[in-house]
Amino acid sequence: MGDAYSRALLALRSLDVPFRPELVSISGRSAGPLEEARERYGWGEAFTDWHDQVEDERVGLFVNGGPNSVHAEPTIAAARAGKHVLCEKPLGRTAEESFEIWQAAEAAGVRHLCGFNYRFVPAVRLARELLDAGELGEVVHFRLRYLQGWSWDADPQAWRFDPEQAGTGVLGDLGSHAIDLARYLAGEISSVSAGVRTVVPGRRVDDHFVAAVELESGVLGTLESSQLARGHKNSNAFEVNGTKGSLAFDAERLNELQVGDDRGFRRVLVTEPGHPYMRFWWPPGHIIGWAETFVHEVGHLLEAIAGEHDVAPHGATFEDGYRCAEVIEAILRSAESGRREAVRYRV
Amino acid sequence: MGDAYSRALLALRSLDVPFRPELVSISGRSAGPLEEARERYGWGEAFTDWHDQVEDERVGLFVNGGPNSVHAEPTIAAARAGKHVLCEKPLGRTAEESFEIWQAAEAAGVRHLCGFNYRFVPAVRLARELLDAGELGEVVHFRLRYLQGWSWDADPQAWRFDPEQAGTGVLGDLGSHAIDLARYLAGEISSVSAGVRTVVPGRRVDDHFVAAVELESGVLGTLESSQLARGHKNSNAFEVNGTKGSLAFDAERLNELQVGDDRGFRRVLVTEPGHPYMRFWWPPGHIIGWAETFVHEVGHLLEAIAGEHDVAPHGATFEDGYRCAEVIEAILRSAESGRREAVRYRV
Amino acid sequence: MGDAYSRALLALRSLDVPFRPELVSISGRSAGPLEEARERYGWGEAFTDWHDQVEDERVGLFVNGGPNSVHAEPTIAAARAGKHVLCEKPLGRTAEESFEIWQAAEAAGVRHLCGFNYRFVPAVRLARELLDAGELGEVVHFRLRYLQGWSWDADPQAWRFDPEQAGTGVLGDLGSHAIDLARYLAGEISSVSAGVRTVVPGRRVDDHFVAAVELESGVLGTLESSQLARGHKNSNAFEVNGTKGSLAFDAERLNELQVGDDRGFRRVLVTEPGHPYMRFWWPPGHIIGWAETFVHEVGHLLEAIAGEHDVAPHGATFEDGYRCAEVIEAILRSAESGRREAVRYRV
Amino acid sequence: MGDAYSRALLALRSLDVPFRPELVSISGRSAGPLEEARERYGWGEAFTDWHDQVEDERVGLFVNGGPNSVHAEPTIAAARAGKHVLCEKPLGRTAEESFEIWQAAEAAGVRHLCGFNYRFVPAVRLARELLDAGELGEVVHFRLRYLQGWSWDADPQAWRFDPEQAGTGVLGDLGSHAIDLARYLAGEISSVSAGVRTVVPGRRVDDHFVAAVELESGVLGTLESSQLARGHKNSNAFEVNGTKGSLAFDAERLNELQVGDDRGFRRVLVTEPGHPYMRFWWPPGHIIGWAETFVHEVGHLLEAIAGEHDVAPHGATFEDGYRCAEVIEAILRSAESGRREAVRYRV
Repeated sequence: MGDAYSRALLALRSLDVPFRPELVSISGRSAGPLEEARERYGWGEAFTDWHDQVEDERVGLFVNGGPNSVHAEPTIAAARAGKHVLCEKPLGRTAEESFEIWQAAEAAGVRHLCGFNYRFVPAVRLARELLDAGELGEVVHFRLRYLQGWSWDADPQAWRFDPEQAGTGVLGDLGSHAIDLARYLAGEISSVSAGVRTVVPGRRVDDHFVAAVELESGVLGTLESSQLARGHKNSNAFEVNGTKGSLAFDAERLNELQVGDDRGFRRVLVTEPGHPYMRFWWPPGHIIGWAETFVHEVGHLLEAIAGEHDVAPHGATFEDGYRCAEVIEAILRSAESGRREAVRYRV
Repeated sequence: MGDAYSRALLALRSLDVPFRPELVSISGRSAGPLEEARERYGWGEAFTDWHDQVEDERVGLFVNGGPNSVHAEPTIAAARAGKHVLCEKPLGRTAEESFEIWQAAEAAGVRHLCGFNYRFVPAVRLARELLDAGELGEVVHFRLRYLQGWSWDADPQAWRFDPEQAGTGVLGDLGSHAIDLARYLAGEISSVSAGVRTVVPGRRVDDHFVAAVELESGVLGTLESSQLARGHKNSNAFEVNGTKGSLAFDAERLNELQVGDDRGFRRVLVTEPGHPYMRFWWPPGHIIGWAETFVHEVGHLLEAIAGEHDVAPHGATFEDGYRCAEVIEAILRSAESGRREAVRYRV
Repeated sequence: MGDAYSRALLALRSLDVPFRPELVSISGRSAGPLEEARERYGWGEAFTDWHDQVEDERVGLFVNGGPNSVHAEPTIAAARAGKHVLCEKPLGRTAEESFEIWQAAEAAGVRHLCGFNYRFVPAVRLARELLDAGELGEVVHFRLRYLQGWSWDADPQAWRFDPEQAGTGVLGDLGSHAIDLARYLAGEISSVSAGVRTVVPGRRVDDHFVAAVELESGVLGTLESSQLARGHKNSNAFEVNGTKGSLAFDAERLNELQVGDDRGFRRVLVTEPGHPYMRFWWPPGHIIGWAETFVHEVGHLLEAIAGEHDVAPHGATFEDGYRCAEVIEAILRSAESGRREAVRYRV
Repeated sequence: MGDAYSRALLALRSLDVPFRPELVSISGRSAGPLEEARERYGWGEAFTDWHDQVEDERVGLFVNGGPNSVHAEPTIAAARAGKHVLCEKPLGRTAEESFEIWQAAEAAGVRHLCGFNYRFVPAVRLARELLDAGELGEVVHFRLRYLQGWSWDADPQAWRFDPEQAGTGVLGDLGSHAIDLARYLAGEISSVSAGVRTVVPGRRVDDHFVAAVELESGVLGTLESSQLARGHKNSNAFEVNGTKGSLAFDAERLNELQVGDDRGFRRVLVTEPGHPYMRFWWPPGHIIGWAETFVHEVGHLLEAIAGEHDVAPHGATFEDGYRCAEVIEAILRSAESGRREAVRYRV
């Protein structure tokens, strides 16, 4: 994720956002790759100890793109040092850890954003805006499923497969995106009835889950994630059906939103000047890529820091990161108990 | 369904199947429409009492396409009179009723087929054949959802919305198809964690359900059906992912099967001479319609009657109809109890 | 084509059309297959000499589905004997032959229809109706291309590859459909600039053509046909762009019409009760197949015979068949001369 | 285009290419916007006279992204000053002007690249590589059409509609891309039979053309471009059919290549690490946008400057720019003469 954020920060230097990012410093574990990255992207300094960054008064925004196990401590320290904070998803490895990160940032009074970058896909934000405007009516039901196909042959030593470093497997990696989009587009999740599996022999984290979920509104939907679905590469897909119409999306066709009513589905290429975030980019039909979602995300945070708007609702706050973690835990509890489990949000 | 079966029987008179159907008689409640249908399709006689058909020695095959409430009695009577029986889905209104129909047909020693016509879509049978041949490897996970959009404005007096006549709502009407295809393509369902709703005010049957299901093999999947999904017309869609590849289908593109592996999904137009059931039809690319599934279904039953093959596995027997009804009841129990409910198959 | 027409006539016996077809007789060259077909479809008699049919007073409609070389003589004889006539496309092997057939039918005062069955695809007729209603504005440009992929490995002895029997190759077989749809949807063709090739070594007819064409309105478009396009099975596809919107169609997705405007393209499933020809069929989303186009075509002719409407504009008359033949000849002349060639319509 | 090239140069500073671009200077007509752009992208200096750049010894690569009327003089001057040159398409306003630009660059011995950026779409280059590897067999036929829909309501004062500044209308703007891809993927064009129109009243340049073209190999194809096709946004689309298989592409789905054979078309998401240019980017399925094509293009030129490979065949040289201009002139001659016109390549 370091590459994605470095490039986004560099791109924002030329775009109409309230601050022009200065790339003060990066940190990481291994000095060699770190210096290579510093030189490549033009970071001012490189530290092997993130404390050096937290103590640096020049740093106004602390972006944490590290593995899940190093989300909590540096992010909390940075927030306490008065820096605005952006932390990759999932926020913590557990709901407890996520709650602490959120509370610390909130107490510090800094702006906080959890890196659910799919909210910053123009088609996804357009979906939310259409829902907010009542164009689809009330939500009736929905389904989200995030499928990739690479993990059959993955390196078992990767940190993503180590429960200590990752917390969960596909639940935290892809499921968190699906949960966050469900909350962003359909509403707050109140209970889940789920199954969780580890399919690949020897794997120490979950690699498939399914859930029938209920929203506070009473609406029902389904969630699913897997990295074992051959043929799919990055199919983060949803459909939301309302009383007046429907919306469908698949991240493999990132620039398209399907907008349906009784006459059928219209394929809308979300690349018009008036579409969300497209003021940064190109003429209609000249599509953008996955990397641009990070430009939108960091740009949105910069605007929030400048007081132009709040991080919520279009950005995920650490509260959203925490709430997502509670849904994940409810899914794990339900898989274990065989019961419909209420999500236990604190506050 | 009377039109669909009448036309299928007429079409089979010109196709290579072991028997040339004679249209002996039809029965129905209202004399006027019945005579109109008799004359239209050339049925020999029309009866307002189905007992007249059951007693008729000329009748070799009894096709029951009536509302759910008149599935059990005539079908059982016909089977006991030694006639082969085809009964529309869902087999009975309850698992108990379905069980009785199955047991009666089995005891009578006649051939029995439950009208899950989607098994007779060439693309669906090809999917099963590819799975049987091991081309996709072992099933890893799957999802089926059957969505239509018409029932917001439906006549509330229709028999489909009367629990007495229909048993259940969308669960029996569309959900039964999804359940049957899950069983046909992925394997036997052992437990379900489900939610069931009635969304439209005043409606007396369910009109939406979601379920996370587990197969006897341990595989997880999801099921969903609704007739409230605007933009969809008849989207009976599934995806099955295996250890080596994936299959996807949507009934709105009835002639297409998407066959995926790590290189992506190939759109296969299932219209080649060697594809299932296509020997009856046209050159490659000249597609068939929904009506042809009934031709294949009845043709398959005629071949089974002639001893060319069993009804199972490519046709659904009354046992399949019964097992589907048990899954529906488990879904209803789970929605009520908030627990993962085992499906309680007798036998 | 005999199978397609026999089944269409049988199907029409149960549908709401002004006449219930009686299958009086068929004719053909080989007594064996002929009797097999007679028995299969229930034709009253089978003749090896079509004169027997022409002389038969019971015959009211003469359907000629034979090879191109036997279109002219029997069709003309039947018309002169006062029978209504339906003749497969292309009408004749040459413009001259086509003109004679048309003139004879016209002089005889019978109803005549040339078997351009794609006009009877509901989505195609809907396209025409939307254009007629001005919903797309004025036509600006268009393109049609009909691609199949089977002829690399085709039997070189087939009548389609014999210039004597077929007249032309892919021009008459597929190109005639593209030309007819261009005329039906966009307007009369006034000139063509074309190239024609025979790609497969040893083949004696054309197997690929391209043409830039101009309409009488000044509008420009392209036409192309080939049976050498691997991956395509029956892709008869067009797009028409108007001042207000666009329409796109592909016969491999026979039930879909793409309707576009500045907001994008909407996929319309042409299966609603109010859509053309759908009164014969099923609930929305339950698609029809290629065979149904012949039911619509013959039904349309029966209605014309009953005086309910003219064959034109929604059916192709023999005049349309003749005009198509003139376009084909202009394409051949242009390929030879290297010039833009005016289409030389007589009358 | 200034934005696209500025961003590409900035992005290349962080990527693995032989030179790290320094942004020495920009030039333009209006001092205000120029300074704004200088500051935005961090260009060292801004000149209102491009001669200042040509005389600057620090400049090693001269990128000309201006309107067509200022392609020739600065590009030639830069090349003569020993700078490598990248010039936007179309190279000149006429074949004559294009020839001069090419000859000057060639005589100067510098590297030259004409900005046909669609060659740098990973899916397009993969298409060429598959063709080079013989996977599709020999090319049989092809079609390219580039459709947008915005120009109905365009500002008539824009330079694109001024024949003096633009040379041609849609022919040079979009048609040049289609011609270049035809030459890149199918082979050299030897003759054209074309029609050219100006549809919008009062417009002084062409806004629609169609052409039936012949390659030196004898292969036939079609070309078309329009900005009057409502519903399309940036649909630069082609299909190439070979003796063994087919390829299809549409720039609105920039990351997808459809690869067809007798079993159907496979949708390949061209985002794998081994796919062309993807070494710069993200995990599979995480798509790239239109802007990245300029990164690939300039990166390719930098590699050519470093001697790693020639600009051709994967980049378009000024010779390609010139040859494209000759095809455009042949199209205009053919539209005027009504004849198939040979393309008159000098050399």
